[in-house]
Amino acid sequence: MLMHEDRLFPAEAGARAVARALYAQVRDLPILSPHGHTQAAWFAKNEPFPDPSKLFVQPDHYVFRMLLSQGVSLDDLEIGQAELKDARKVWRIFASHYYLFRGTPSRLWLDFAFQKLFGMQQRLCDETADNYFDVISEKLCTPEFLPRALYERFNLEVLATTDSPLDSLADHQAIRDSDWNARILPTFRPDSVVDPEFEGFAENICTLGTLTGEDTASWTGYLAALRISRARFKTLGCTATDHGHPTAQTADLSQAEADKLFQKVLKVGADAADCELFRAQMLTEMARMSLEDGLVMQIHPGCVRNHNHKLFERFGRDVGADIPHTTNYVDALRPLLDRFGNERDLTIILFTLDESTYSRELAPLAGHYPCLRLGPSWWFHDSPEGMMRFREQVTETAGFYNTVGFNDDTRAFLSIPARHDVARRMDCAFLAKLVTEHRLAEDEAFEVAHDLAYRLAKKAYRL
Amino acid sequence: MLMHEDRLFPAEAGARAVARALYAQVRDLPILSPHGHTQAAWFAKNEPFPDPSKLFVQPDHYVFRMLLSQGVSLDDLEIGQAELKDARKVWRIFASHYYLFRGTPSRLWLDFAFQKLFGMQQRLCDETADNYFDVISEKLCTPEFLPRALYERFNLEVLATTDSPLDSLADHQAIRDSDWNARILPTFRPDSVVDPEFEGFAENICTLGTLTGEDTASWTGYLAALRISRARFKTLGCTATDHGHPTAQTADLSQAEADKLFQKVLKVGADAADCELFRAQMLTEMARMSLEDGLVMQIHPGCVRNHNHKLFERFGRDVGADIPHTTNYVDALRPLLDRFGNERDLTIILFTLDESTYSRELAPLAGHYPCLRLGPSWWFHDSPEGMMRFREQVTETAGFYNTVGFNDDTRAFLSIPARHDVARRMDCAFLAKLVTEHRLAEDEAFEVAHDLAYRLAKKAYRL
Amino acid sequence: MLMHEDRLFPAEAGARAVARALYAQVRDLPILSPHGHTQAAWFAKNEPFPDPSKLFVQPDHYVFRMLLSQGVSLDDLEIGQAELKDARKVWRIFASHYYLFRGTPSRLWLDFAFQKLFGMQQRLCDETADNYFDVISEKLCTPEFLPRALYERFNLEVLATTDSPLDSLADHQAIRDSDWNARILPTFRPDSVVDPEFEGFAENICTLGTLTGEDTASWTGYLAALRISRARFKTLGCTATDHGHPTAQTADLSQAEADKLFQKVLKVGADAADCELFRAQMLTEMARMSLEDGLVMQIHPGCVRNHNHKLFERFGRDVGADIPHTTNYVDALRPLLDRFGNERDLTIILFTLDESTYSRELAPLAGHYPCLRLGPSWWFHDSPEGMMRFREQVTETAGFYNTVGFNDDTRAFLSIPARHDVARRMDCAFLAKLVTEHRLAEDEAFEVAHDLAYRLAKKAYRL
Repeated sequence: MLMHEDRLFPAEAGARAVARALYAQVRDLPILSPHGHTQAAWFAKNEPFPDPSKLFVQPDHYVFRMLLSQGVSLDDLEIGQAELKDARKVWRIFASHYYLFRGTPSRLWLDFAFQKLFGMQQRLCDETADNYFDVISEKLCTPEFLPRALYERFNLEVLATTDSPLDSLADHQAIRDSDWNARILPTFRPDSVVDPEFEGFAENICTLGTLTGEDTASWTGYLAALRISRARFKTLGCTATDHGHPTAQTADLSQAEADKLFQKVLKVGADAADCELFRAQMLTEMARMSLEDGLVMQIHPGCVRNHNHKLFERFGRDVGADIPHTTNYVDALRPLLDRFGNERDLTIILFTLDESTYSRELAPLAGHYPCLRLGPSWWFHDSPEGMMRFREQVTETAGFYNTVGFNDDTRAFLSIPARHDVARRMDCAFLAKLVTEHRLAEDEAFEVAHDLAYRLAKKAYRL
Repeated sequence: MLMHEDRLFPAEAGARAVARALYAQVRDLPILSPHGHTQAAWFAKNEPFPDPSKLFVQPDHYVFRMLLSQGVSLDDLEIGQAELKDARKVWRIFASHYYLFRGTPSRLWLDFAFQKLFGMQQRLCDETADNYFDVISEKLCTPEFLPRALYERFNLEVLATTDSPLDSLADHQAIRDSDWNARILPTFRPDSVVDPEFEGFAENICTLGTLTGEDTASWTGYLAALRISRARFKTLGCTATDHGHPTAQTADLSQAEADKLFQKVLKVGADAADCELFRAQMLTEMARMSLEDGLVMQIHPGCVRNHNHKLFERFGRDVGADIPHTTNYVDALRPLLDRFGNERDLTIILFTLDESTYSRELAPLAGHYPCLRLGPSWWFHDSPEGMMRFREQVTETAGFYNTVGFNDDTRAFLSIPARHDVARRMDCAFLAKLVTEHRLAEDEAFEVAHDLAYRLAKKAYRL
Repeated sequence: MLMHEDRLFPAEAGARAVARALYAQVRDLPILSPHGHTQAAWFAKNEPFPDPSKLFVQPDHYVFRMLLSQGVSLDDLEIGQAELKDARKVWRIFASHYYLFRGTPSRLWLDFAFQKLFGMQQRLCDETADNYFDVISEKLCTPEFLPRALYERFNLEVLATTDSPLDSLADHQAIRDSDWNARILPTFRPDSVVDPEFEGFAENICTLGTLTGEDTASWTGYLAALRISRARFKTLGCTATDHGHPTAQTADLSQAEADKLFQKVLKVGADAADCELFRAQMLTEMARMSLEDGLVMQIHPGCVRNHNHKLFERFGRDVGADIPHTTNYVDALRPLLDRFGNERDLTIILFTLDESTYSRELAPLAGHYPCLRLGPSWWFHDSPEGMMRFREQVTETAGFYNTVGFNDDTRAFLSIPARHDVARRMDCAFLAKLVTEHRLAEDEAFEVAHDLAYRLAKKAYRL
């Protein structure tokens, strides 16, 4: 068996028994996935997923970056190819390097999918590579493995995608128009029209004008267009926005200053500081609109995108190594918080890739400001140790109730149950530790486990 | 029962047995509280504490910030009111939100006081709120709950307050003059007269001159006034000073430069850099005076005070969110250390809110310089996990003997026994881990447990 | 007994059993020591080590800094004296302060040597000081304690020293020329000729020219001289270079710019920024040469050297407190990585003293770039807790196979077996945790334990 029933639970017998009992009560709760990167088109079209390599290797940058780091060529993995020339060869390369994932969360997620979805019992390696490829390929052609069937099998209650204001959202509309009752919701992610350093920014602003019928050459028209765009998302069920800026910087310019800055960044010649200030101002504008329309705001800062220039030039976004950076929240968020920090009807969910901020900045901020909540451990830290550090470093200052449950944040649809399972197990493991050390009563732990697995996400994301 | 006898001890049976045995030897040691924020007036006047809300909710910013963060209004909690209009209503709000404190140290401290002092057995919640209010209110009127009786019941050997050089220390004098034998000692905290950005700085300097009979308009007169002021504190038993600057920056200006800077910061027009440099220089001056008069120096840097402007404007200090900041010690302390770092008769105790400095900066510095010691985990980090991180990240480089035992650092007098109990338990838990993993012999662990609970504080603070 | 057979293994019985089983398979593997600071002269001359104080106290800055931090005078310890006047007195001071090392790795290393090499059974303290001194002194005169005998007894397979390009390497040559078959290899450490702030930089460059027959007054001659010097190291078995710059900054100047900068730093008048830029450029030049000649590159940044000016002036390097500093890798390494990051034939091993970079920067970088590997936890962090933090914070993103096994990095020859033993035990303890929590299968853990103890170092350092 690839997966043990007690995986991720503490070794000590008393704590393990508590963890098991807690987990038994949450394992079958519906999955809320309020932040992720699956594609609505899969569910709109409901076509079979292609072969194992296209499913597990090609789109998963956790997987191929590890292979790359150990000398495997991205060309051999056919990264960036629309159609794989030799999917079996790619799969064999992956299989022969599967040992690299020992001790990583990718291994947990993959083994979960291999065993639970495809019934594999033996570990993936050179010898089993072909059998894996054949079994998975065969099953992917069956009705049980169509996207909609998997959505239901995964017990998903809500699945949010991430979408540009320039997107037609036609796939979302198609799902709504179909007879299939599933809650697949768009998320408003406006980087392309609020970040002057985004490819084609000025052109995107024009397109936004066309789509909304507003004059986006003016600051007020631009803001109006964003409001219209947000409203359009809301009609398709959207409850949240998402903002992936390089830093957490916010600003609170006068409308005259903002207008002037907008004109500057629309033209060629704005410098890096202008662009940073504009993004900063736009976070505050987004908060203002969230107060008006009730969309929950997510801030995902602190990432250096496309660190590896050569790969980025060759393969584009999401291949060229996004690397975390030190991130400041205390000074950066102050302009926004000065303006809206005490608003009880506003929810801003903060994420970080800089774990040193958990106890130093994020927990103290979220343990004070009514509008702030902490998103779960993110990206590289979405792992057993990362989750444990999050709870250990956040809970004592911010408590459980300033956190918002789990996000899977994934492009890998098949990993969703595995990721939520890891999160539920780790939360139960953490609670079991508190119970066994008599820091929390057992009846309270049961309530908290349920909150962390389901209720907090439902409340924070207004689902 | 709210509290379990084995709380905070490791789950594994062998380690738990060692922790129990260690704790049994230190649990009844007298409490040394060399750094805190209780009020000498309580003990000078020895009047009953008012109602439960005034005692547990209103003064405890750990408590009301958590309620605030989840949408409770500070007005409903009557924060900032001298007299509570409806103490029972405040208490009910607190009780109905008590679940927010699950997993936090506040919960441990509160349950300890509820059970050990007031005999409560059931958890605080909506249903038990009124009973709690009635029982606590009644007991607070009895002689056993007067401040002096509690001091004795808590087995306090020393209790230090924190005081301004502008304070008359009349309450301290009154305690000395009374027939009550307790060691309640002032601590010299000169922020109001060494920080040019402190409210009323220039006026404070004048007052200091009046109080000491020195001409504080001159640099030498100012220094002489500080020396006189320190001597006055010493006559009332003071053994330590305390410095809460925004950063750990120190400077070592020539006396001519310092004189010139002093004149500048006294006038309107000094900029932020001047103020920072003046504070930096004053840390070095304080170290110089400590070498002369033997007062132990405490440095508490790295806090952004009053982060929430609106609350600060409305409610004042200690309500408006003090948030930690990244803190540098390696460069910042160098001027002071260049001057006095090798002095064996000087003791400087360093604190931090930036846990990333434990292993990177503080332990290496304290494990080298004769004058440096490390204060316990502070404020947000004064918690089970925070204490464990402190020991795990500091001990291997600085050892146990460059640390100084525990500070409760509290305004909440009733939480003092609980806080020391948590610290003693966590130190025993850490030592039990070392013993069980055969990293420390058991007989040595017993000696260290006693040192951490009592002897190190006594020595470091010269009590 | 000073040392327990199960030391450093987890307390929980199941995990301890797994750790024991894993350790049993790696405890007797040969030791690869690819990075350290022992002296080739010891093995060239094979003379007895002097007395216990000269061996254990005087050269070990971990030991004497702790004594200093608690008020022991370096003069009393005779630090910096070529010959000790009263070795027994120094030893007694050390013994009477031995309790300071409780909970530190120094204690583990020392007890290991005391028991395993010298057969001591009782703890070092005042009472046993003289017996220790006598027993150790006596044994040091026997043939079994000569350097070569110890090398063999320690089961060393490779021992690398650290050497300047200006060194004749005569001792290395002498070992090669002898009939003793041991692999004692030099490491190319060019600080003295690539760091303009190194004492005597310009003069060193001249000497380099003389030694290599190149005109080092020109940029091209200088580079040619470095190539020749590296080739000379290679003939004596060198497989790696080492770079201990204040930061990890790299640069990628045009050769014209580099030439101009070289001329500037050779003259008096270059400022700190010039020196930093030159060092930055030289890391990239070293990477270029490594691609040509196959030497593995090690980067050890982030240390403020000689923090304690007074001690540095009095006692020189390696006494005056080297203190870690925050270190940035993401921006700093980018110029070098832009140039060579995707080279699969280049190996660059990164170290840090700033543990906050493990999960934030180093693991994401090493988990992506083919040329990058992570060195083990370094210096202050070369300790049980430090090693555990390294594995916990690095493995989930970078896996095991982007790490390179253990370095002892020591001047203290007698501590080498102890240090590798601690590393092997901690790796087994970490793996045992993964196995017991069902995050890794047991058969895989056995393979990984062997990799971490032996195979990864062999491969990464090309031994």
